Amino acid sequence: MEDLERLLREGAWDAIRRDLTQTRPFDLAAELTRLDDQQRAVAFRLLPKDLALAVFEALDPPVQKDLLNGLRDEAVRELLANLDPDDRVELLDELPAKVVNKLLADLSPHERRLTTGLLGYPAEAVGRMMSPEYVALRQSMTAGEALDRVRAVGGAAETVYSLPVIGPDRTLLGMTSLRQVVLADPQTPVSQLMSEPISASALTDRETAARLLQEADLLALPVVDAEDRLVGVFTVDDAMEVLEGADTEDAARAGGAEPLRRPYLVAGVLQIARTRAMWLLVLMGAAALTVLVLNTFEAELEAVVVLALFVPLLIGTGGNAGAQAATTVTRAIAVGEVRFRDLGQVLAREARVGVLLGAMLAVVAFAAGTAFLALRGEEWADAARVASVLALSLIGICTLAASAGALMPMLAKRIGIDPAVVSAPFITTTVDATGLVIYFLVARAVLADMMGG
Amino acid sequence: MEDLERLLREGAWDAIRRDLTQTRPFDLAAELTRLDDQQRAVAFRLLPKDLALAVFEALDPPVQKDLLNGLRDEAVRELLANLDPDDRVELLDELPAKVVNKLLADLSPHERRLTTGLLGYPAEAVGRMMSPEYVALRQSMTAGEALDRVRAVGGAAETVYSLPVIGPDRTLLGMTSLRQVVLADPQTPVSQLMSEPISASALTDRETAARLLQEADLLALPVVDAEDRLVGVFTVDDAMEVLEGADTEDAARAGGAEPLRRPYLVAGVLQIARTRAMWLLVLMGAAALTVLVLNTFEAELEAVVVLALFVPLLIGTGGNAGAQAATTVTRAIAVGEVRFRDLGQVLAREARVGVLLGAMLAVVAFAAGTAFLALRGEEWADAARVASVLALSLIGICTLAASAGALMPMLAKRIGIDPAVVSAPFITTTVDATGLVIYFLVARAVLADMMGG
Repeated sequence: MEDLERLLREGAWDAIRRDLTQTRPFDLAAELTRLDDQQRAVAFRLLPKDLALAVFEALDPPVQKDLLNGLRDEAVRELLANLDPDDRVELLDELPAKVVNKLLADLSPHERRLTTGLLGYPAEAVGRMMSPEYVALRQSMTAGEALDRVRAVGGAAETVYSLPVIGPDRTLLGMTSLRQVVLADPQTPVSQLMSEPISASALTDRETAARLLQEADLLALPVVDAEDRLVGVFTVDDAMEVLEGADTEDAARAGGAEPLRRPYLVAGVLQIARTRAMWLLVLMGAAALTVLVLNTFEAELEAVVVLALFVPLLIGTGGNAGAQAATTVTRAIAVGEVRFRDLGQVLAREARVGVLLGAMLAVVAFAAGTAFLALRGEEWADAARVASVLALSLIGICTLAASAGALMPMLAKRIGIDPAVVSAPFITTTVDATGLVIYFLVARAVLADMMGG
Repeated sequence: MEDLERLLREGAWDAIRRDLTQTRPFDLAAELTRLDDQQRAVAFRLLPKDLALAVFEALDPPVQKDLLNGLRDEAVRELLANLDPDDRVELLDELPAKVVNKLLADLSPHERRLTTGLLGYPAEAVGRMMSPEYVALRQSMTAGEALDRVRAVGGAAETVYSLPVIGPDRTLLGMTSLRQVVLADPQTPVSQLMSEPISASALTDRETAARLLQEADLLALPVVDAEDRLVGVFTVDDAMEVLEGADTEDAARAGGAEPLRRPYLVAGVLQIARTRAMWLLVLMGAAALTVLVLNTFEAELEAVVVLALFVPLLIGTGGNAGAQAATTVTRAIAVGEVRFRDLGQVLAREARVGVLLGAMLAVVAFAAGTAFLALRGEEWADAARVASVLALSLIGICTLAASAGALMPMLAKRIGIDPAVVSAPFITTTVDATGLVIYFLVARAVLADMMGG
């Protein structure tokens, strides 16, 4: 596809129309996302109706919202009426309450009922993302009757592949699949095709539900209310979206920022700055501790000025060792490999890893440090002593950093904070101050005579 | 389920057998992963045959491999024969070539042919993870005939929901779905049910294929050879596994380590240390630059000793600002939101974000720094001048850090390096040295008289 932005600027309508219809909806959605609001609305209005809906569905909700502002009321009404209820709820979440009420009023009573049902669940709950349109079977049906049922009502359902089997009061009894129904002899009772259901409560956190679906290799997870009655199904495409969002959130937090919640190129400079400002301030506040530590050890620093030369290297390395441990453990928590009860085991491993890595760095730092200081004009013996302070500190700092890097995400998870929040930058900043204390205590012990102590 | 490890230690076989059969395969797999090799083999041998296969399939390939060592040859042969070809290839990738050849010789000719076909593709290619067992339709079939075809051969296929339509030479003509086939009138020709196929070449990188499947909301992506002939399908469960692995890899690299490639608690201390040692050494080598910078500006440092107090805070903050930008941009690249052609736009945004954040921090640092230095006993005017050096440096450092944090992942991607590799720790370490240069240049300009210049 030619550069859409250029064609729009040139007003080459025919070329645009040809390009648009030859491109796949999700590629078009990516192209539209990159345009500014006005160009996006112009391009969207050029799309044939069917394609327009498919493209709209493929856009991220924040971009959908921006696009709605550029369309006529009638077009907005029509788009909204044709969205699946769960996608509609995601879009409505972006809009002000007043607009939501107006748009809901325009829906058909059936669609409105489905939508408000989902809107009743908390923001992060799987209930809000499930589809209330599914095909439910009865235990008493045969496979043939089940297939007829799919044919009769499957057109409106989000998926017809995962088929919940329910009792008279809508209690979830089991799950079967279109595959089993199709492959079975038509006379086989559904009760023989179904298996124990793996389900989630509608109030379950959606990331938890998505990981369950993934681990159990399902295409859809049935969602039930407190009385175990079926209320919807959570499909694999939505689960992938949730997991991608969760990983984006973890990545942002690992970098010491809040997630943007909209595509990078669509977000404004102020929006980006806002996701980072708070963390940067908090971390600078924590870094002020290093000023106090250096202030405390000023006498040692003035007595042996070369000590100052290694401060950035030491705390940088400590920070890196801490970040390595923190990201490894945070990820292991996120994918469910490590739980709080493993704390002792995790700490023991990370402490040993820290000692090992610290010892390796110490050897290199001792050799390079001695050579550097001797080249600078120090006596060889003095050079080796200062370098040994560097080497010993590295062992202590790496051990501390790896242990703290493992401990903090696990504690965070335990008390209900996102472990990613306390990962890399938070750890490095806290390890900085402690690392300096280790450095100057080692220096005081090894270089006592140089410091006149 | 009670604590499996304790029960095994106590030899409570009946309780174990009861627990094992009441637990879901993927939960059991998680439990087994946490046991040591010997206990795992004991517990596995207690499983009824059907459950054993389901549990085995749910294990990670490195754990599968460890488990095979504890089983008799006959059990190994049987497990391997019952795995899907793509899962079998993943396991064989863990084993030494000699063992692989022996195991391949034990397979049935049909299964061996399927397996060696996949083994012929490069390690990271989607061809190696696709399923060669699918149900292909012909254009000339009716929907009714298509359903009969699914019934006849669907039992062995990995999926029957995504149905490729092929020509006489196996050329991929289009895709349809079991949903469309079931819902259509049985007389409808398949040619009317199919749509333009979204497909991947068998040599495509598997992460690229997985993202394509996700963006296009597919349950399976048809995979073709260089002549556009269908060779397999790549299913959504495998795509989710690939994306999870890619995100784990990115998370590890963002923390300055190589990915572990096996569950955290199963990896040995030496294995963990090995994933981190190289990066830690490289980063310490880069950090040696800070020693050289401080060495160069030693005269300034000795003239105004308080400057040393702020070194860790400054470089720490610069590192954090760089890490924020780097992780945001790395993630935007990973999910396809940002491409190289956006470089100018991304740099312009990050530079502006850096100035904004730097200015915010500068205000806080100027006020707090002046107060701190005055409390320490400096004259108010001198305190304010030193604090202004801190403030001005923060603006420069944040701008530099945010720009470098955006630039480096994009350049890395351009020259074919994983952008995650150059993210957080790499950026912080390189920004450290440059940040110090900025600091001392600003100090030299503002405090010229104090330095006797």
